[in-house]
Amino acid sequence: MECLEVEQAAKLLLEQDWILILCHKNPDGDTIGSGFALCRALHQLGKHAAVLCGDNVPRRMAFAAADLDETLRISPKQARYVVSVDIANTSLMGLVLSDYQQEGAVDLAIDHHPSHSGFASNLLLRPEEAANCQIIYELLLAMGVEITPEIASCLYLGLSTDTGCFRFSNTQPRTHQLAARLMEAGADWFEINRNMFEIKTRSQIALEQKALRTLRFFCGGRAAALVVTRQMLQETGASMEETEAIVNVPKSIEGVEIGATLKEQPEGGFKVSVRTGEGVDACEICSAFGGGGHKRAAGCQIMQTLDETMLRLCKKFEEVLS
Amino acid sequence: MECLEVEQAAKLLLEQDWILILCHKNPDGDTIGSGFALCRALHQLGKHAAVLCGDNVPRRMAFAAADLDETLRISPKQARYVVSVDIANTSLMGLVLSDYQQEGAVDLAIDHHPSHSGFASNLLLRPEEAANCQIIYELLLAMGVEITPEIASCLYLGLSTDTGCFRFSNTQPRTHQLAARLMEAGADWFEINRNMFEIKTRSQIALEQKALRTLRFFCGGRAAALVVTRQMLQETGASMEETEAIVNVPKSIEGVEIGATLKEQPEGGFKVSVRTGEGVDACEICSAFGGGGHKRAAGCQIMQTLDETMLRLCKKFEEVLS
Repeated sequence: MECLEVEQAAKLLLEQDWILILCHKNPDGDTIGSGFALCRALHQLGKHAAVLCGDNVPRRMAFAAADLDETLRISPKQARYVVSVDIANTSLMGLVLSDYQQEGAVDLAIDHHPSHSGFASNLLLRPEEAANCQIIYELLLAMGVEITPEIASCLYLGLSTDTGCFRFSNTQPRTHQLAARLMEAGADWFEINRNMFEIKTRSQIALEQKALRTLRFFCGGRAAALVVTRQMLQETGASMEETEAIVNVPKSIEGVEIGATLKEQPEGGFKVSVRTGEGVDACEICSAFGGGGHKRAAGCQIMQTLDETMLRLCKKFEEVLS
Repeated sequence: MECLEVEQAAKLLLEQDWILILCHKNPDGDTIGSGFALCRALHQLGKHAAVLCGDNVPRRMAFAAADLDETLRISPKQARYVVSVDIANTSLMGLVLSDYQQEGAVDLAIDHHPSHSGFASNLLLRPEEAANCQIIYELLLAMGVEITPEIASCLYLGLSTDTGCFRFSNTQPRTHQLAARLMEAGADWFEINRNMFEIKTRSQIALEQKALRTLRFFCGGRAAALVVTRQMLQETGASMEETEAIVNVPKSIEGVEIGATLKEQPEGGFKVSVRTGEGVDACEICSAFGGGGHKRAAGCQIMQTLDETMLRLCKKFEEVLS
C-alpha cells in the first residue's frame, strides 16, 4: 500500500478511465457527497465513471445522483479502476460491495477516518479533515476540475452532515471557509440543510412522541434513557432508519451527561446508542458490553430483557459518573 | 439623522467616552453578542462603557456578560454617549429603556434591519448583513480592536443565532468566512451552539410531548397546527419563553407548507406563530388577522375560542394554498 499526497492521487486519476467509485453501506452524506462529486468531476473530464453504493442512496440525498451524464456511466463490470470514498475498512462495504473486499480489489482509497485499515493499493488519507468531502475538494482542484453548482452541492452535503451543520467538535475554520466557497459556487445549501436537519416524516414525529413517554432519568438526572420498541415502529409505520434523530434526544436534555437509546431488535435484545458530554467516554461504556465507537458517540448490543438491560446500563452509568 | 459608513462610526466612537450600549427587549443572541462585543472592545481601548438591556440577559447567553472589567463599567446616569445595537425601532426598547425612546436620546444606532425606523442622531445601517454582529466585527477592526477570545465568542453568538446555525436563508458566504475567523480567534463556538441549539430543559421536553398530542393536519397535509394551552404550561412548569423551539415543529414535518402554533393567552384568545415554506407568505396570512412579520415567519393574535381560531386559520390556509 502506498500513501499518496493529493497531487499524486490527482495525477493517478487523470491517467485512468472507466472508473468505479465505491460508497459505504448505510450511506451518510459524506460518502454520497464524496462519491458523486468525484463521479461528476470525472465526467467533466470526459472520463467514464459510475458510483456503486453499499446500500440505496437515501431519498433525502437523491439530488446528488440525479441527472448524471448517462453517456459516460459504466457498469461495475466495465470498471478498470476502483476508488473507495469515506470507507474506513472492508466490513463497511456490505453485501453489495463484497466483491471488492479482497486485497487489491480497490486501487485507490480516499478517506479521513483515523482508524482506516489500509485495504487499497493506494491510499489518500487525511485524518485531520472534518469531512472526506474536504479532501475531494482539494483533489478536484488539483485535477483542474471546475466546481459546478452540482459538484458544490455534493461537497456541501458531506461537509454539513459530517459536522452536524457546523456544530460537532470536528468542525474546523477550514470547514467554514470551504462552505463559503461552495455557496459562491452555487451549492443548493438551503435545501440540503433543510432536508438533512429539519424535515421529519409524520411517522418520525409519532415515533418520537411514543419513545419520549419512556424517558427515564438515572444518577440524579445526569443520565437519561429512551426506549424504542418494535411495537412502536409497527404502530407508527416508522423504519429503524427513522430512529436516527431520536438517539440524540436524551443527551440534549439539560444536565444530562450520558444519553442512551435502547432499540429493541428483531432477534431479541437491544441495540444501545450512547451519547455523552465532555468528560464521559461513550466508547468506554459500550466497550464494557462488547461494543465500541467514538468518545462522544458509541454503541453496543445487550441480549437481555428490557429491565435487565436498563439495570446493567444504569450500573455502568453510576460507575462511570462516580 | 446622518447615515454613516463603518469608518465614520469607528472614528465617532474613538472620540467618545462614558458610552452606554442599548440592547433590545426579549434579547436574542445578535443584540446580546453585538452589545457585549462592543462593550469589551471599548474597555480594551480604556474607555468607560456598559450594556443596558431591555430585559435580563438570558441564562444561555450569560457568558457574554461575564467577567467584564468592573473598573471601566458605568451606570446609565454616567453615560455621555448612547449607542443602540440591533434595535430596529424604539418600541423594541421596552420599559427598561423607555428613557431612550425620545428623539435625540440615542447618539448612534448600529443595525441591520431593513425596516430600521431611524430614531438616532447617527445611523450605521447595513441591511445586507445576515447578523448585526457582522457589522460590529467590521467596526471593531476599523477601531483597531484586537479580537480576543471573549469578543470572538460574543460575535459568534450573534452570527450563529441570527442564521439558525448557518441554515436560514439569510446566511451568506461572508457569514461562514467570519465564523472561520472567529473560531481562529478563540470563540467558544462548540459550547455556544450546544447551549443555543441543542440543550432543552426537562419542562421543554415535557411540554413538547403534550403539545405534539394536539398536532392536526389541514389541506391534505399541506398545513399543520399545534396548540400550547396554559394548562400545559402549568402542568410541565414550562415558561412561555420555552415554547420558542416548538413553533418550528409543525413546519418541519414532511409535506407541510404552513405550520402554525397556537399559544393560549392569559387574557384569553391565542397568539399564533406561523412558519411557511417557499411560495407561501406567512406575513400575508397573519396580516389578515391584524398581525405581521416576515415572509417565512410571522405572528398574530386571535381573540376567539380554540375551535373558532382553528376554523378561521384553516379557512385562510385553504385560501392561500389554493
